[in-house]
Amino acid sequence: MARQERARITRDRLIDAAASTFCRLGYVATTTSDIANEAGATRGALYFHFTSKEKIARAVIEEEQRRAVEAGTHIMALNRSAVETMLLLCTDLARRLRADPIVQAGIRLATENANLDPPLRSPYRQWLETFSAIAARAVREGDFRDNVDPEAFARFLIPAYTGVQLVSDTFTGREDLMLRIREMWTFLFPAVVATDRAQDMQALLDELIPAE
Amino acid sequence: MARQERARITRDRLIDAAASTFCRLGYVATTTSDIANEAGATRGALYFHFTSKEKIARAVIEEEQRRAVEAGTHIMALNRSAVETMLLLCTDLARRLRADPIVQAGIRLATENANLDPPLRSPYRQWLETFSAIAARAVREGDFRDNVDPEAFARFLIPAYTGVQLVSDTFTGREDLMLRIREMWTFLFPAVVATDRAQDMQALLDELIPAE
Repeated sequence: MARQERARITRDRLIDAAASTFCRLGYVATTTSDIANEAGATRGALYFHFTSKEKIARAVIEEEQRRAVEAGTHIMALNRSAVETMLLLCTDLARRLRADPIVQAGIRLATENANLDPPLRSPYRQWLETFSAIAARAVREGDFRDNVDPEAFARFLIPAYTGVQLVSDTFTGREDLMLRIREMWTFLFPAVVATDRAQDMQALLDELIPAE
Repeated sequence: MARQERARITRDRLIDAAASTFCRLGYVATTTSDIANEAGATRGALYFHFTSKEKIARAVIEEEQRRAVEAGTHIMALNRSAVETMLLLCTDLARRLRADPIVQAGIRLATENANLDPPLRSPYRQWLETFSAIAARAVREGDFRDNVDPEAFARFLIPAYTGVQLVSDTFTGREDLMLRIREMWTFLFPAVVATDRAQDMQALLDELIPAE
């Protein structure tokens, strides 16, 4: 195995180890030694790749965002309607939040952003821009009403989703997250869905996020 | 000054000091020495009142909840309609989130709950119960439609508000919080407000949370 390949594998292992350590202990309580131990690596190896705990936290977030972009690109390539695309993005993130430590750590680092300086705005920005663009497409496709402001919609949806997953985590360890996301959309639809598309959109929601 | 009175004053000072230290450093990074220093008290005085950092964190949250109940009781006593009461509770909490370190610390400890074991569900429970009861009254008063499920409404509103204030904190240090709360309600109203009350409710929103 080439030296570069070995270095890449070590770096990935350190990022995985950092994610699970941040999830277990939180950002502030985690030390670089904790991360090196968890990865079965030396602190020297860690410092070869990352010069500080903040650098490795940012690498975890970058990896989370890379996975989000990858998942998003895959969903976009399905060429579904804008509303279906939004529902798929929400349920896909919910699934990854429940199963992937990198995603759990990335979202936790973002919601506990006060620990990082400057605060982590870029993950929110990315979601805001994505949903704003898709909501504009939903208007063009006639599923959203003409008077819907796509930016305002994204500006409410992204924080709302952030809170929904946080409270679901607090109460049920995200067991009920899909149901809570379904509930969120039942409250959002009346504000945005075109009257003549209401039945179709409800059917779509029932199909993609069944009531149980 | 009686000994009891002095003890109460010291206890309050320790809670204030803990709140500002938790806000500055986060829960995990804060030590009991940091809190004693901030309060200008000895660690002995701190341990006389609180046997652990977790105990003092819970005291901060209890004080935040006490202030929430006090503010809520004051707003309830105004005897306004259910919808007006909900809007007043939201804007009142927003004001206190911007001005009161105890409230900032209480909410931060609640949203970073993974650091505490068991997780902090009681602040959410209290808000959920309060808003569920008021939403039921909004249905009885005819401002909300008959088919609105008050519990489901509260189950979405409380997490949504949690996320809205968190993202507003991340982007603007809560400078834009009132506008974001207004935006939240413009998206919620179409899902719940009775058709014949839509104009009145919009007027109420414009009065209580002006667009600028």
